Amino acid sequence: MTDPLRNIKLVIEYDGTDYHGWQVQDNARTVQGELRRAIARITGEEPTVTGASRTDAGVHARGQVCSFRTSSRIPTDRLPAAINANLPADIAVVAAAQVGLNFHPRIAAVGKLYTYRVCTRQAPPALNRRFELHHPRRLDLTAMQAAADRLLGEHDFSSFQAAGSSIKDPVRTLWSCRLSSPRADSVILSVSGNGFLYNMVRIMVGTLLLIGSGKLAAEEMATILAARDRRQAGPTAPPHGLCLEEVYYRPEGATP
Amino acid sequence: MTDPLRNIKLVIEYDGTDYHGWQVQDNARTVQGELRRAIARITGEEPTVTGASRTDAGVHARGQVCSFRTSSRIPTDRLPAAINANLPADIAVVAAAQVGLNFHPRIAAVGKLYTYRVCTRQAPPALNRRFELHHPRRLDLTAMQAAADRLLGEHDFSSFQAAGSSIKDPVRTLWSCRLSSPRADSVILSVSGNGFLYNMVRIMVGTLLLIGSGKLAAEEMATILAARDRRQAGPTAPPHGLCLEEVYYRPEGATP
Repeated sequence: MTDPLRNIKLVIEYDGTDYHGWQVQDNARTVQGELRRAIARITGEEPTVTGASRTDAGVHARGQVCSFRTSSRIPTDRLPAAINANLPADIAVVAAAQVGLNFHPRIAAVGKLYTYRVCTRQAPPALNRRFELHHPRRLDLTAMQAAADRLLGEHDFSSFQAAGSSIKDPVRTLWSCRLSSPRADSVILSVSGNGFLYNMVRIMVGTLLLIGSGKLAAEEMATILAARDRRQAGPTAPPHGLCLEEVYYRPEGATP
Repeated sequence: MTDPLRNIKLVIEYDGTDYHGWQVQDNARTVQGELRRAIARITGEEPTVTGASRTDAGVHARGQVCSFRTSSRIPTDRLPAAINANLPADIAVVAAAQVGLNFHPRIAAVGKLYTYRVCTRQAPPALNRRFELHHPRRLDLTAMQAAADRLLGEHDFSSFQAAGSSIKDPVRTLWSCRLSSPRADSVILSVSGNGFLYNMVRIMVGTLLLIGSGKLAAEEMATILAARDRRQAGPTAPPHGLCLEEVYYRPEGATP
């Protein structure tokens, strides 16, 4: 007797510092690889673990989503604890749910929320060194927010896509792009939208930091966007400030 | 020609995870040892680095204070960057100031502020695993706060002192003892006072967690305090939730 096949959606949190990113690679520690191994250990199967986002080396997640199919008898609500018991301490399954067999976490996603954290004080961040870019300069948040506002809505974001990317349609819609300063020496960019090109948030941050430091005028953001040319934007900010906070889906059963 | 001797006060931040605590020990990595080495490298001297608090292995600090004397010519405002360039990434000098030659960071301190962080969700904290105790139970914050309030003011805190401590006067004054919940699955205790016995905050937390989990009534806190007996209190909570946030001093030149 075989148990019925289930498709399981997991919400995953991880500290990406010690990983070569999400996606399985030969001879490199990856988040997907660790999950696959942990799930294999408890189910005795060899699962395909599909992620919503291929986060880069050093990028973190508080709400990555992935799915795998299983014929295991382990009840869905017991899966997080069972998988967590087989994961290293820097990855945790936060939630599990049974979804339709055709659910695909990337294709079904309707949007994502990312944050990027910057520490602006002179001293490097010792406690938050894994999660904050150290950029010891006073930043003009007003100028940065004015520039960020130019990116809202539907645009061709080719200027904010890693050179050499092969995505055919570079049009995405940004829903929000907010700068906040929870502490005097810290700045957080929160950005949500229906999708993101490769390195898009990190190139946005690299450009916003030029604007915040007075090296580029806020109005230039519109010119850069219109150019559809990666060379017009600022540098790609380092990965460790970036965190995939949440992947958005339609409520179960909702029609598109 | 010798430059005049200066006494330098430093404010230090560190992630205590990978240290055997503050105090220098043979054959063990300590925060004091790393600071001494970094200061020696830039001054060419062999400084005595005196700390305000001997934090235990695994305990963190956002505002530890220490001092050392030097005849170096390095201007005080350049010391943080110079020392930080010689420190590992998990320790940072946040500020430096010249103080009187007789300033002693422990003796001059008039009080301290600690926090203790608890993650109460089922899944272990992957991102904050170095800084939060995982205690996957719903906590009754109202009961915990009622119990914490019993500790305010001047008391003999012998019940909250590690067994075998040799401190003569166990009387301390707590100024504040507040529980807050910044996220649904997180609880922070913030506690300030004129001084703390060995393991005092961690034993307070161990006891408050028993109360929050319904294993002990909030009113028992008064009985435990009055008993002046370590065996009456709860267990010593693990070190990694604890952070020395700030050491308080009188403003320079103020009379006691």
